[in-house]
Amino acid sequence: MPKFSEAIAPSQAFLYGEHAVLYGSPALAMSVDVKTRARVTEVEDRIIEIRSDRFPEGLRWRYDEEQPEENPLLPLAYGLRDLMKRYEFNKGLIVEISSDVPVNSGMASSASVSAAISAAFLSLVGESPEKYLLLDIVYEFERRIHGRASKTGPACAVLGGLVWVEWRDGNMEVSRIDSKDDLSIVISCSGLPSETKKLVSMVSKRYNEIRDVMDRIMHAISALTVEGRRAIEKRDLVRAGELMNINHGLLSAIGVSNYVLDEIVWTMRRLGAYGAKLSGAGGGGCVIGLSENPEVLAKNLSASYPSFAAKVSLEGARVIR
Amino acid sequence: MPKFSEAIAPSQAFLYGEHAVLYGSPALAMSVDVKTRARVTEVEDRIIEIRSDRFPEGLRWRYDEEQPEENPLLPLAYGLRDLMKRYEFNKGLIVEISSDVPVNSGMASSASVSAAISAAFLSLVGESPEKYLLLDIVYEFERRIHGRASKTGPACAVLGGLVWVEWRDGNMEVSRIDSKDDLSIVISCSGLPSETKKLVSMVSKRYNEIRDVMDRIMHAISALTVEGRRAIEKRDLVRAGELMNINHGLLSAIGVSNYVLDEIVWTMRRLGAYGAKLSGAGGGGCVIGLSENPEVLAKNLSASYPSFAAKVSLEGARVIR
Repeated sequence: MPKFSEAIAPSQAFLYGEHAVLYGSPALAMSVDVKTRARVTEVEDRIIEIRSDRFPEGLRWRYDEEQPEENPLLPLAYGLRDLMKRYEFNKGLIVEISSDVPVNSGMASSASVSAAISAAFLSLVGESPEKYLLLDIVYEFERRIHGRASKTGPACAVLGGLVWVEWRDGNMEVSRIDSKDDLSIVISCSGLPSETKKLVSMVSKRYNEIRDVMDRIMHAISALTVEGRRAIEKRDLVRAGELMNINHGLLSAIGVSNYVLDEIVWTMRRLGAYGAKLSGAGGGGCVIGLSENPEVLAKNLSASYPSFAAKVSLEGARVIR
Repeated sequence: MPKFSEAIAPSQAFLYGEHAVLYGSPALAMSVDVKTRARVTEVEDRIIEIRSDRFPEGLRWRYDEEQPEENPLLPLAYGLRDLMKRYEFNKGLIVEISSDVPVNSGMASSASVSAAISAAFLSLVGESPEKYLLLDIVYEFERRIHGRASKTGPACAVLGGLVWVEWRDGNMEVSRIDSKDDLSIVISCSGLPSETKKLVSMVSKRYNEIRDVMDRIMHAISALTVEGRRAIEKRDLVRAGELMNINHGLLSAIGVSNYVLDEIVWTMRRLGAYGAKLSGAGGGGCVIGLSENPEVLAKNLSASYPSFAAKVSLEGARVIR
């Protein structure tokens, strides 16, 4: 039987502070119990083969013989190739990915995939890194994939729980806070892609044009994120929801909401949510909401949008075989 | 023929800064060419009789013989009674009001009515006050009607043009800026009442609860209002529209938008507006938008909401007969 390892990793929801976190604000994210599973199998052939339930065409690359062809899975293959070099792994790999995380949804599906692959690969080569080392590896993996990456997605995927992101001495630092598993949110998908890169650069353009205004909005998001952490830690869902509503308004103000996201947000509120906001880069992707009864809210929302209740995942990336 | 006077007064749209103006921000409002006409006729009977196209039941009050009955026009009658005392006018008045300004629309219909009545009454008693004295009178009139009143509505109704509101040494001061008549907006009515008092107190409650957050939002509105004035004065409609979008997001953040207002705002944007926002206290009332071609936009919007294009009214309240 060929040597293999298998790992799972959760995904992310942004409770407060997305976008503003790129301008000095803290952010609070939640590791979401919607996961990616990756199985990495060692083969003698010097290939990287990736099979994904999302991209049925897959990818197969003889990495030291040929230039790979254009393929949506190629960035993953490059990330993996770098990881193989780093650990002086000279054989081949078959990677099988199955993920419940919607792509381009603002749920950091890519970080979840990167974390599951990295954890499985490291286990395969006999490493069992402590969490923050794995986090660095996943962050590097993501950077290799995207050019620029947020630390929040990798932190949710690797650390689990609630993730606090803040700036210290010019560095973005992530840490896990809270360790109760009684937080659930409702996630509702717009079906529109959330194109992080495009939105981040759009906000940056606006920031440079009307810095006075944008700075103050970022400061407001910063203040509400601090309040939001307090409310979430106390499980004061009413206040936490109100702050989500405010955060959504501020995200609208910086220009990253749209008609569909606003409609979902209002539908959630009408159906009794304490509050709702877009989660992640916006422009599409998912809306999250807080509710006394997330299962019921998700069921009611499902008439209009693919929706589900999701618990915080206290576990981060984990090798399962 | 009985002695009478007739006056007209424009209404208001808030371009930037509503709500925040109550927390120290400046505001920019526009006197809108949608007007109220009031005819005040002297009669020997010591009565106040008000006829209004909006309240067909009217009001008739023998002011020194009886307590008046409950009536939606009663606050107007009280305001008028005070004005009569101030000018030692001891006869009776028949007031006929016809207004194109929608009630509870955030367009300051009440200030427009107060201004038209005051201007007509003053003309009747032989006074021709200069603008800022008339403004004080209308402001007092409004205060008598509402208890608390904004200076913005009276300023739009009396001064005309674009009205800049700012705080100096703890006083809210209004002044007219700009004097070109080439600014038009589109106004679209939600059909929901905008209940200023309720919304102002809701915002104030939220302000007291999470002052840190709300203060920063108010500061952001303050900054964008300054930018907005600059853009409007340059007739840079693209920038002015973008700032309206931001202002709308910030108004959403403080909690005064709703599903219908957001829907109108998005519809305007989809139909090509440079930007759109709720105007006034929110919770209902009107949405305003900037467009290259307001007539066409208004026509397209009319399929969904009562909408019209409206020019800035360079004239304030004016006696016409």
